[in-house]
Amino acid sequence: MLGVVIPLEDGKNKQASVKPLVDLTRADMERVNQLILSKAGSDVQMIPEVANHLISSGGKRLRPMLTLASASMFGFTGDAHIKLATSVEFMHTATLLHDDVVDESDLRRGKSTARMIWGNQASVLVGDFLLGQAFRMMVDVGSLDALDVLSTAASVIAEGEVLQLSVAKNMETTEDDYLSVIRAKTAALFAAAAEVGPIVAKTDKASRNALKSYGMNLGLAFQLVDDVLDYGGKAADLGKNTGDDFREGKITLPIILSYRRGTQDERTFWRDAIEGGNSTDQNLEKALGLITRYGGLTDTIARAQHYGTIARDALAPLPHSPWKEALLEVIDFCIDRVS
Amino acid sequence: MLGVVIPLEDGKNKQASVKPLVDLTRADMERVNQLILSKAGSDVQMIPEVANHLISSGGKRLRPMLTLASASMFGFTGDAHIKLATSVEFMHTATLLHDDVVDESDLRRGKSTARMIWGNQASVLVGDFLLGQAFRMMVDVGSLDALDVLSTAASVIAEGEVLQLSVAKNMETTEDDYLSVIRAKTAALFAAAAEVGPIVAKTDKASRNALKSYGMNLGLAFQLVDDVLDYGGKAADLGKNTGDDFREGKITLPIILSYRRGTQDERTFWRDAIEGGNSTDQNLEKALGLITRYGGLTDTIARAQHYGTIARDALAPLPHSPWKEALLEVIDFCIDRVS
Repeated sequence: MLGVVIPLEDGKNKQASVKPLVDLTRADMERVNQLILSKAGSDVQMIPEVANHLISSGGKRLRPMLTLASASMFGFTGDAHIKLATSVEFMHTATLLHDDVVDESDLRRGKSTARMIWGNQASVLVGDFLLGQAFRMMVDVGSLDALDVLSTAASVIAEGEVLQLSVAKNMETTEDDYLSVIRAKTAALFAAAAEVGPIVAKTDKASRNALKSYGMNLGLAFQLVDDVLDYGGKAADLGKNTGDDFREGKITLPIILSYRRGTQDERTFWRDAIEGGNSTDQNLEKALGLITRYGGLTDTIARAQHYGTIARDALAPLPHSPWKEALLEVIDFCIDRVS
Repeated sequence: MLGVVIPLEDGKNKQASVKPLVDLTRADMERVNQLILSKAGSDVQMIPEVANHLISSGGKRLRPMLTLASASMFGFTGDAHIKLATSVEFMHTATLLHDDVVDESDLRRGKSTARMIWGNQASVLVGDFLLGQAFRMMVDVGSLDALDVLSTAASVIAEGEVLQLSVAKNMETTEDDYLSVIRAKTAALFAAAAEVGPIVAKTDKASRNALKSYGMNLGLAFQLVDDVLDYGGKAADLGKNTGDDFREGKITLPIILSYRRGTQDERTFWRDAIEGGNSTDQNLEKALGLITRYGGLTDTIARAQHYGTIARDALAPLPHSPWKEALLEVIDFCIDRVS
């Protein structure tokens, strides 16, 4: 059994937490939240309505915290990191608005999606507006390096979403295909969020690369764990909202592993369920049984721990600081969510 | 009757044409077309498929030609204007892809829309990709002023589209509301396309403002004429694809004028047709009759000529050149389309 409780340096087993990062960035996050409200504003009433619905829906705001921490750990104290952190959160929010349209989702974090309340039209267009506002804030910061990193991320994210579309419902998807998708659609923004901190702090190239690598591998671990959580976590519990990926025919690593490790009959079952769209509750139960039998969840968590280790090593050369410790603990926190 | 054949300086009546602008920008437009193909490329096969479907669908590429001309007229010869012209065209293409999803359109320029062939999902995401690529090219140019103008336009365009959504099917929409919509959703990109030319050519602020004003007013005239063309042009002919706006309940100036100038009974008809969605062919014929009776089309063309005049005066202080003449002729060309 894979451990999800991580032994910390003090030798005691303790649940890893995002709290140190939250505490360190609290004052700056208040400024980010103010800027979010201000830049999601518009005389066109529907825009703040739609934007605030999603913005206030209780996300952890992990990405903007990464930007704040990765600038502050190098002693940066201006306001560029506030604007870039807000840009990062807007890029993420725009992606969610568009994703819900693309996936035809009814619920996100237990609340109705914006498209269910205001329609697909508003979700597409308010997403475009937030993306535009994100770019305006980046331009306002005036760092061409940061603009380069974030505009490249915007292209890569969209490319990853299209790739996901084209591998959807295809049981021949390999683990490498899947990794390409999550690297682009999730990890690229984590990497960019962490890289722009050292950029505005005008630190050396090595530190910039360290934070980029940290963000990229943290993002991979985060998405892998998310995909395990969709099946109810390690225990493969059938709870509320469990199995959404299965029902949508979304190919994630737990399925890829179980399909490849299964018998011919089981592969026929997977093709019928995923490619044929035969995703009844009964089939979901059978799928969970197969995923458990072939270690689909525990091995996906093992992959997440692999990337978590890379993220940890990426930060190793940086000097000890509360910021560094907080960022390291976030790695464990992201993986611990699955326990 | 409003003239649509414009007396040129040589004293002869001649149909205004976009040809002088096409001829002057031909070499640069070939470079733009190369860059379009290259930057719409991706290892994810669906991306160039969707992008090229729209890119090759025979648009006039008026916007990138504006950027090229507005840089070249000040003697600029680098490649920044090529990249910015391509960015402008990508922003426009992304908007069209998203518009077709928002409007649930089946046809554009007589061809199936991307969303009918590849689905709404691909249209949303490939639009996002092209927008990301547009920003990457702008960043590559490295002009923060140009980035400011184009990123602001991106926000304003999306804001205008949301505004259009919120006034949709509302017969109380005023001419001012309508102008706010077309200023944001159409004219802002024309203005930005024309303004970034003088920016990269590092010319004076007065020339930059002249081109911006030219683009803004040209864009307004262009959209007004487009809205007349949707009703078959001046003659209000019921042809193929005529009345799409009416059927979608889209409020444009011809309807706004006819509604306001009509009787109580006629206003009841309009509310039933537009707000109630009773847009039968019979009602479209009746609508065209009312629009003709109240001068809805000829007066919309008169408004277009008003903005065309402002665009012409905006360029007046600039020295005479073939570029300036070509840009002036484009104003008449945009309005002449309606004849």
